[in-house]
Amino acid sequence: MENLEYYMNIALDLAKERKGYTHPNPTVGAVIVKDGKIIGKGFHYKAGMPHAEREAIKDAKSKGFDLRGSTIFVSLEPCCHYGKTPPCTEAILEEGISKVVVATLDPNPLVAGKGVEILKQKGVEVVLGVLEKQAQKINEDFFIYITQKRPFVHIKVAQTIDGKIATKTGSSKWITSQESRKYAHILRNQATAVLVGSNTAQLDNPSLTVRYIQTERQPIRVLLDSKLKVPLNYNIYSKEADTIVITSKEADPYKKEILSKQSNVKLYTLDTYNGKFKIKDILEILYQNQIVHLLVEGGKEVITSFIKEDFWDKISLFTAPKIVGEDGISSFGSLGVNDINESIKLKVEDFKRFGDDFYFECYKQV
Amino acid sequence: MENLEYYMNIALDLAKERKGYTHPNPTVGAVIVKDGKIIGKGFHYKAGMPHAEREAIKDAKSKGFDLRGSTIFVSLEPCCHYGKTPPCTEAILEEGISKVVVATLDPNPLVAGKGVEILKQKGVEVVLGVLEKQAQKINEDFFIYITQKRPFVHIKVAQTIDGKIATKTGSSKWITSQESRKYAHILRNQATAVLVGSNTAQLDNPSLTVRYIQTERQPIRVLLDSKLKVPLNYNIYSKEADTIVITSKEADPYKKEILSKQSNVKLYTLDTYNGKFKIKDILEILYQNQIVHLLVEGGKEVITSFIKEDFWDKISLFTAPKIVGEDGISSFGSLGVNDINESIKLKVEDFKRFGDDFYFECYKQV
Repeated sequence: MENLEYYMNIALDLAKERKGYTHPNPTVGAVIVKDGKIIGKGFHYKAGMPHAEREAIKDAKSKGFDLRGSTIFVSLEPCCHYGKTPPCTEAILEEGISKVVVATLDPNPLVAGKGVEILKQKGVEVVLGVLEKQAQKINEDFFIYITQKRPFVHIKVAQTIDGKIATKTGSSKWITSQESRKYAHILRNQATAVLVGSNTAQLDNPSLTVRYIQTERQPIRVLLDSKLKVPLNYNIYSKEADTIVITSKEADPYKKEILSKQSNVKLYTLDTYNGKFKIKDILEILYQNQIVHLLVEGGKEVITSFIKEDFWDKISLFTAPKIVGEDGISSFGSLGVNDINESIKLKVEDFKRFGDDFYFECYKQV
Repeated sequence: MENLEYYMNIALDLAKERKGYTHPNPTVGAVIVKDGKIIGKGFHYKAGMPHAEREAIKDAKSKGFDLRGSTIFVSLEPCCHYGKTPPCTEAILEEGISKVVVATLDPNPLVAGKGVEILKQKGVEVVLGVLEKQAQKINEDFFIYITQKRPFVHIKVAQTIDGKIATKTGSSKWITSQESRKYAHILRNQATAVLVGSNTAQLDNPSLTVRYIQTERQPIRVLLDSKLKVPLNYNIYSKEADTIVITSKEADPYKKEILSKQSNVKLYTLDTYNGKFKIKDILEILYQNQIVHLLVEGGKEVITSFIKEDFWDKISLFTAPKIVGEDGISSFGSLGVNDINESIKLKVEDFKRFGDDFYFECYKQV
């Protein structure tokens, strides 16, 4: 029982198994330990289903264990409010669990320390902050979603080592390796929604679905198309997944009508400013749609808008060891950087290789 | 004695100590082993001085060892011709060394297997190819110099992660970290000469000397300046180091005369084609000057010419985790790439971090 981190790591691994599937809820894992032995494990399967703590309790009880005097390790603070399911704090108290080890507090203002407080008042020993950073990383999207009241914005770019996403003719298939492209589908699978602009939807005709890996559900597709210029028979409207289309008053009303009748399409009309949407407005709509994690896949102008308006949290940069030269299409549009010290500074938190490619997981340098 | 690689590694480490200082000769290390004990070590100090084998023999003899029956490990095939020093094969035979372990053959056609042949004929046991790749890598520059009859062309670029070497205003100080800049001086120290174009010499006024690390000598500076537009009092002409200036008929004859009188300056006049030198012509002059390893530091147009004319062997790419955006200055000029499959494919053989930066050591993908 000494090694709290050992058991918490198992709880975190359980949480990781459901990453992407629990939105708008966080992904959470729980482990119950008694007399130095793991007697129950659980994770939150998906929104509307029992929380990780209840799953672990059920698991232990189904094996005939008495939970009195046991310790539960949870990757996120137990809830104390009635949501779709009753509070986990009650279940913990009912079962006589005597110690609760929590990786990190729940940022949700309905919980935010209150879960821990209730347990302590009832005489349960609480240890807080075990593998806190790792636990926050697993739910980095949920933390932004709850505290900023907008989706976590995750930008994906596939470029050459000299910062080009295509040649001058637009040729880009394939810049990156098969391994990189496969990982890009894992990223899609962890997102609630995947966003592209109308140019990308028209030129590449992507379906934006998760392929090459198994998935339980397809992420929602988000299309920014102020004039509804993407043909309605394009892949982005296929029946495999839902699509949120953000358009403007400039769009053809007839097309709008057709789209509004499609069961897998949700249509929003937003104001444009010099022909462009405000990212803030887009994120507001997506937040209303409970999109926790938004993967922005392109094109360049859309990505640049997110960066310029400072609505981004993470950039996944796939970089192939190839040189295209200056007449290729740059990865990012103009950002108004005059002095080198005004450049966008990144903090590369993780670094992997996929085939010959380099993958950089970038955050803001603060 | 079983572990040939163990002793060869020591010989390679000895060779590495002199990297950059032995040009136009390769850097070589030698270790003599008898009865499982190292009895002598040596390296080639610099051109005109004894070879590594003779230094190792001298070392062993100075300690009173009898070399008969010993084994010598050499990182490069022993020479068998009279150069500035007598052949090493003779010394080996004279001392009664009974076994010679060689990492790699000498590509020099005067040797190229003949050294090994002579030893074998005289009854010496020869083992060839122990840590061959590592040995070839240490002298990668020398191998190109000998086989291609031109300097090894090593391009250095300091860029952002989106492939920019400066903002649109030319601001670039400093893109990369102090650690990267220090390593760039190690690269200079390993080069015979450092080359820049006239724009870079004029804009940045670099001295191109080795600083921040200790050095025994300064690399030669090479300036491409068809019109001799770089003022003669600029740092590239400072007395700290020699300078080779390549100019054209377009240059001011008065300036040419002044430069030709400077003891540290060597002036060449070359033809230009559409205002540009042919890289082939430049390399011919530098080869005549026994420049084994040429570090090309800029600017962009000069680097692009080397790549376009396919005269390059290695690119050292320092990459800072910063984004400048498309209006910045790209790392490489136009290369005429239309289809993504025509891009220059790199093989990243080494990868390091310097501070926050990523350093890629790139070769051609064959």
